[in-house]
Amino acid sequence: MASVEIVTIGTEILLGQLVDTNSTHIARVLADHGMDVFAKHSVGDNADRLEAMLRGVLERADGAVTTGGLGPTVDDLTKDAVAHAVGKKLILHEPSLRAIEEKFRQFGRPMTDNNIQQAYLPEGCVVLENPHGTAPGFVALRDDGKFVACMPGVPREMRPMLAQKLVPWLDKRFDLREAIYTRTLHTVGIGESSLDAKVQDLFRTLENPKIAMLAHAGRVDVKVMAKARSRGEAEAMIEPIAQELRRRIGPLYFGDDDTTLAGAIVQALAGHGWTIGTAESFTGGAVADEIVAVPGASKVFRGSIVAYANEVKTALLDVPEETLARVGAVSEEVAVAMARGARKRLGTDLAISTTGVAGPDGGSDEKPVGTVWIALAHGDEGMETRRLTFPGERSDIRIRGTVAALSLVWRGVSDGFATAAAGS
Amino acid sequence: MASVEIVTIGTEILLGQLVDTNSTHIARVLADHGMDVFAKHSVGDNADRLEAMLRGVLERADGAVTTGGLGPTVDDLTKDAVAHAVGKKLILHEPSLRAIEEKFRQFGRPMTDNNIQQAYLPEGCVVLENPHGTAPGFVALRDDGKFVACMPGVPREMRPMLAQKLVPWLDKRFDLREAIYTRTLHTVGIGESSLDAKVQDLFRTLENPKIAMLAHAGRVDVKVMAKARSRGEAEAMIEPIAQELRRRIGPLYFGDDDTTLAGAIVQALAGHGWTIGTAESFTGGAVADEIVAVPGASKVFRGSIVAYANEVKTALLDVPEETLARVGAVSEEVAVAMARGARKRLGTDLAISTTGVAGPDGGSDEKPVGTVWIALAHGDEGMETRRLTFPGERSDIRIRGTVAALSLVWRGVSDGFATAAAGS
Repeated sequence: MASVEIVTIGTEILLGQLVDTNSTHIARVLADHGMDVFAKHSVGDNADRLEAMLRGVLERADGAVTTGGLGPTVDDLTKDAVAHAVGKKLILHEPSLRAIEEKFRQFGRPMTDNNIQQAYLPEGCVVLENPHGTAPGFVALRDDGKFVACMPGVPREMRPMLAQKLVPWLDKRFDLREAIYTRTLHTVGIGESSLDAKVQDLFRTLENPKIAMLAHAGRVDVKVMAKARSRGEAEAMIEPIAQELRRRIGPLYFGDDDTTLAGAIVQALAGHGWTIGTAESFTGGAVADEIVAVPGASKVFRGSIVAYANEVKTALLDVPEETLARVGAVSEEVAVAMARGARKRLGTDLAISTTGVAGPDGGSDEKPVGTVWIALAHGDEGMETRRLTFPGERSDIRIRGTVAALSLVWRGVSDGFATAAAGS
Repeated sequence: MASVEIVTIGTEILLGQLVDTNSTHIARVLADHGMDVFAKHSVGDNADRLEAMLRGVLERADGAVTTGGLGPTVDDLTKDAVAHAVGKKLILHEPSLRAIEEKFRQFGRPMTDNNIQQAYLPEGCVVLENPHGTAPGFVALRDDGKFVACMPGVPREMRPMLAQKLVPWLDKRFDLREAIYTRTLHTVGIGESSLDAKVQDLFRTLENPKIAMLAHAGRVDVKVMAKARSRGEAEAMIEPIAQELRRRIGPLYFGDDDTTLAGAIVQALAGHGWTIGTAESFTGGAVADEIVAVPGASKVFRGSIVAYANEVKTALLDVPEETLARVGAVSEEVAVAMARGARKRLGTDLAISTTGVAGPDGGSDEKPVGTVWIALAHGDEGMETRRLTFPGERSDIRIRGTVAALSLVWRGVSDGFATAAAGS
């Protein structure tokens, strides 16, 4: 198995001014293609430290995969360090120069010395074309065959270069055989510790595949990881474990891998032929946004009424003014009225409502910041409600409220309740 | 200046199954407190590689700050590697054991051998209490004074431990003096290259403070970074540069640092005493969600009508059926009707509408995927519209559409148009 370490270059990343999603993406892609990713590193735009780091990587692993440090201002520094680390000189690469000239002609912009500089590459390197930008990537090769692959830091340039240029080169060079294949089972509405109790014997005993748990706001994932020589072989190892996990987790399981909670809901609703809408106060459209994010949401989603002001709750969701005055906006009665109102106004089978105190202001002894009511109207009569209290800041409370609303919908559409009451 | 490298521990992070936000946070906090962050690294749950990495870090820097690897299953492995790297034994730390026992008593749960194991720490270490979890953090010390600080990987445990325990310890030990202080100027609706042209002389000539540019979807940031001995000294260096940048950028500048585009809008609207609502189709509530995310949004935001289905556009936004049939939902005429309808139904001074083809289906030759219309109604007569075409996938198009809608609002409320037309 070929081994690599990933290096992200750039002071912005190093100092935490930018979250590093590039190395996450590269690690996943390389692991999926059977590379053994030993470590990830991040250095600033500092030639000496970069060179020292690359030398260290090439002692431990077969190669380094780097991203960033190829912009017009820091280009030279990065390429100098890479060239030194593999013991090569920088020379003008004519085809890259012509490609850069061609791009500037297309854009109708003048070329600068800086742009010409981008065509200087380590002698003997493999060029990785960049259809989405000017700076080409490249794989610099040391005489002993170890390599440093350099890609730009802009994700829309880096990702296609990785998939279409670098991975095929690695595949050819290392004849990759064994890879880690994963499947992630998503669950909702269950705390990490109670899930742990259901699966911890597997967690402790399994070696290959092995499982791991990951908690998110209001959701927990169980990941099954198999080391195998092909996706098919891995699937045969993963499937029995996944079946056992689904059996233990029960209806709180909602899907695998790229399936989002909203995606599972859209699919389930479409299966029943039901439509949905939302009535949102403190979530401000976030529940609707999650649903609309799902490709094909138009089959089941009709719309949403975000009623942040009380007058809008009354005017567009028919929540009686008297109710608002008597029990306040954050109450079961108002959540129920909002869900009923949305169902009627939007003409849907189901409607989910949210009302809560997201803070920082607006809390009281009786209804502190974090107090939330959600209600799900299904059919003409059906109604499920939940009172929840979330810790944290405004953003935490809004995210958890959004997940709780989707969870209530999922519990409804995935199990029997809806069959009886919400069928249209 | 004290130097550190940051190490995140955990196979999940290494293999890209989880985005690493912890090291981002730690780097920012340490840099703000005057530590020189040389590099960041990520290793899997592998004792040998972790130990080798820590030994390398301690050769280059004064210490390592690690996060992760302290969960009940991988605890031993991490602590063994750390203890080896600093040449110490693991011994039972009685106060930590009692603290763990006390927590389990509070939660009413039984303790396991694993939990007792959490109280074994490298001899002579400094314990970092963990008020938000069971596993304590610690700073292991090598005889030459170099250190390895270990914190849990759960952000809600790590962040307070960093701020309240580790940073004070570092401050005391290293008598920190010089730090990098930054200010970020946010701009909207301007491409990176045209912004570059406005500021590139500063970019090339400034040393301290220096500036950098960061592109996001539809937004570009200019960051001013000053190395100084205090926040006050840094501000005195940053302010003249920031003034010059604001002068060059003009009305496309919307705020500094934590100011979001929606936050700037809410503040500007509140200043004018204006209210706003949204009418959204393909953005599905995301524009409203951005506004509601701003604390105090209730001063200016009343609500939103997410009209995803055409019948909802007609029923709740008064978009004539005839118009939809004649020009289609993704058209200037429908965007205008949606904005007018929302303004009337929600009773606001301004209303912003979005309609577009987010894909993957629904595109045509005339209106390919990525075609977007937005409209801003202000006052009884005022109307601004934009046609935009975005590349990318559904999620890219929806994010860029959301930013474009907020940008149009910002251009309106920040400059003169609104004064004349939208005043109420």
